[in-house]
Amino acid sequence: MAKSSNEKKRNPGAVQQVVTELAAAFGNRLVTSQAVREQHANTTTWIENQPPDAVVFPQDTGEVQQIVRICAAHHVPVIPFGTGTSLEGHVNAPFGGVSVDFRDMNKVIAVHAEDLDCVIEPGITRKQLNEHLRDQGLFFPIDPGADASLGGMAASRASGTNAVRYGTMKDNVLALKVVLADGEVMTTSRRAKKSSAGYDLTRLMVGSEGTLGIITELTLKLSGIPESIASGVCPFPSVDACCNAAILTIQSGIPVARIELLDALQVKASNAYSKLTLPEVPMLFLEFHGTEASVAEQSQRFGDIARELGGGPFDWATKAEDRTRLWQARHDAYWAGRSLRPGAQAIATDVCVPISRLAECVAATQRDIEEFKLVAPVIGHVGDGNFHLTLMVDVDDPDEVKRAKKLMERLTELALSMDGTCTGEHGVGQGKMKYMLAEHGAPALGAMAAVKRALDPNNIMNPGKIVPFD
Amino acid sequence: MAKSSNEKKRNPGAVQQVVTELAAAFGNRLVTSQAVREQHANTTTWIENQPPDAVVFPQDTGEVQQIVRICAAHHVPVIPFGTGTSLEGHVNAPFGGVSVDFRDMNKVIAVHAEDLDCVIEPGITRKQLNEHLRDQGLFFPIDPGADASLGGMAASRASGTNAVRYGTMKDNVLALKVVLADGEVMTTSRRAKKSSAGYDLTRLMVGSEGTLGIITELTLKLSGIPESIASGVCPFPSVDACCNAAILTIQSGIPVARIELLDALQVKASNAYSKLTLPEVPMLFLEFHGTEASVAEQSQRFGDIARELGGGPFDWATKAEDRTRLWQARHDAYWAGRSLRPGAQAIATDVCVPISRLAECVAATQRDIEEFKLVAPVIGHVGDGNFHLTLMVDVDDPDEVKRAKKLMERLTELALSMDGTCTGEHGVGQGKMKYMLAEHGAPALGAMAAVKRALDPNNIMNPGKIVPFD
Repeated sequence: MAKSSNEKKRNPGAVQQVVTELAAAFGNRLVTSQAVREQHANTTTWIENQPPDAVVFPQDTGEVQQIVRICAAHHVPVIPFGTGTSLEGHVNAPFGGVSVDFRDMNKVIAVHAEDLDCVIEPGITRKQLNEHLRDQGLFFPIDPGADASLGGMAASRASGTNAVRYGTMKDNVLALKVVLADGEVMTTSRRAKKSSAGYDLTRLMVGSEGTLGIITELTLKLSGIPESIASGVCPFPSVDACCNAAILTIQSGIPVARIELLDALQVKASNAYSKLTLPEVPMLFLEFHGTEASVAEQSQRFGDIARELGGGPFDWATKAEDRTRLWQARHDAYWAGRSLRPGAQAIATDVCVPISRLAECVAATQRDIEEFKLVAPVIGHVGDGNFHLTLMVDVDDPDEVKRAKKLMERLTELALSMDGTCTGEHGVGQGKMKYMLAEHGAPALGAMAAVKRALDPNNIMNPGKIVPFD
Repeated sequence: MAKSSNEKKRNPGAVQQVVTELAAAFGNRLVTSQAVREQHANTTTWIENQPPDAVVFPQDTGEVQQIVRICAAHHVPVIPFGTGTSLEGHVNAPFGGVSVDFRDMNKVIAVHAEDLDCVIEPGITRKQLNEHLRDQGLFFPIDPGADASLGGMAASRASGTNAVRYGTMKDNVLALKVVLADGEVMTTSRRAKKSSAGYDLTRLMVGSEGTLGIITELTLKLSGIPESIASGVCPFPSVDACCNAAILTIQSGIPVARIELLDALQVKASNAYSKLTLPEVPMLFLEFHGTEASVAEQSQRFGDIARELGGGPFDWATKAEDRTRLWQARHDAYWAGRSLRPGAQAIATDVCVPISRLAECVAATQRDIEEFKLVAPVIGHVGDGNFHLTLMVDVDDPDEVKRAKKLMERLTELALSMDGTCTGEHGVGQGKMKYMLAEHGAPALGAMAAVKRALDPNNIMNPGKIVPFD
């Protein structure tokens, strides 16, 4: 069906016309080579690579308007591109079209230190932004691991290891400048910290994955770099005990900044990959932010909770080198997982459930992994109820592929049955569309489709993602 | 123009038919007496009272669906009603129609203590909910002062004195059950703490003031009641020093729970009304939440900041009685303001600006108040950049009314020129519609109107609020 729809939508004459007009306007910033087109399609998962017809590199909002207007005139798709780290085929071009690469729009436009906000272009990555902010004692807290572009992070409602304290992109974007399907530019909100002035267009755009408009400027909330940071690791007798420790920590009001689960297999993989010597049991990695006195108090209170649950000892330190090494290992968990089975394809799952159901969800999934004879270490943003399998699959073994697919179906069904979601932070893209009806129900999915049709009546904005259009 | 549109929309035959059908279905839970209809229209501001044609009291979501379907069949407006504390004419019925009063839908459906969330019906008020939660050591932090219904608070994206720490309704609603314009029920999200599964329907509904659908169930995030709470008041030499103290407090990462400005006139009014003996100078009211050690540290650090800026002494205490008395006085500030000029009409303004511009905005407004010979004490959620005038107007003096209107126009223009908003927390309703174009610009307002038309094509959901439809 995707194919016939695909055939139906492609219009080679229109595409040729668009490429000609864009080439005239953008010169060598319009690229049509096979290699560049393929780099701009999906590359990080097992979803098939569906390259766009051309890639263009705009330098300001006006140029993005120009691109959208040219594409709109010919009903040719427009697909925004940040750094290409998405996992669900967000940047694929199933109906062809033009990929808009924000490489050249990576400036910091303003930092308002007193207001704890900044205005940036969408192509800047989170590490580049934090580098820029460091001298002012400020940072942008959302950390999905990958050095993604901020535009892409907003578009996919990204989060990561410290969402438990700082929230997700929905909580940290104040306002967006967005080029709409007709080429008009809207500003979704003012720079005031809060507003009740009408529909929340900012949150409507955050997580819309380029299907409602293209983000060309972001106003982000910033946080002060904490006076003191403490990090540590804590072993537990079971995943269940890890989850209970997380629940108690949050219930007690300890403002933990990160609380990350690694199951025994993941610890083993990380020991090997990151040259650590941790006991190969379920483990929490933690981080506390605050004043010196406050992080000491938080660490001590967490240590008490861990002990009560049979965990510990909880070793913590405030030395920057130890911390960096620890969190580098956590960020490398995905690569460590991959190294368990070189040559296999890694697939990252992403369910999120109410935290009270997390232990049960992980345990059932670990039983499935064993039953299905698969290799899949577990890492979890356990304070949010969100966890990932790094499912290592030999794609040349059809039976294993079948088992892996079955496992993913079961995991999603289980999460939905627990009032959870199929995706905590990776987004829908192409890969999760099949779960949308089961997750949301027909009326909510119908409302999403109605909004999509209202804002993009010709379905040119990143078509084939999130919601079915027809 | 409102009038002609009004005439055009009213259809007495259709209304009669709807009333007959609702009376058959709801018996004496359908009321058409003049007194009850007027109580359900706008009563708290100087906006004219525009009563609905009937008021109905549903008992569950199914009944709300039934009401909406009957109204939809005849294109008759439906206006949701909580406790009627809104300030901008949200519950008025400019085109007639049926007011849906949630008085009887006020149950707590579930409390999930481990997940820090609860599921409730929309008619329960925040005080009733917190009473229910207290035994479990939990509370719902949003506090707009008035004992509003949670459904109304979500619909108007309310916030209040502790938004600086806990956010607004947009940050504390996890999911909503909503009856749409066609009578279908959608659930906007799952109970998982975060999700990237498609458009953020929850945030689209929060703040939509009943114009896109009617909220019939809410899943709210809860917080643990802090182990220790410290409160205090701190005098300052000027409003400017108060604002700078707030900026420094937030920049230093002190997680202040409330930081409220009262100008000298407001302090004078509160002294008289609440029998306090505060020095009649600009003043901050503060509250800190945390462990005993942490609130002591926070209070001390704030005291240092205040001293640096020529403020203080900062007296703080953790005794519950002192705290209650203090915050009762703060909550009564509006009534205290009114008592400055008995018999006058009180009008509450609500601009919100980037915090760096707050002092300038308040100072310019105080000059305007003096120039215009008006009486208007200032209270401010200074950590958010949001402040209110309680503008006391003799409505029988046309010249004073004219000066008051002029003042409000100037205040809004000034806030918009500072990248602020015309409403930080009261909502648009009817009163702020005239500012929407200036605040958002045509493309954003057009996007809002497109969403409205997509979800409510016949304009029956609380028409005449937020966005122009035609």
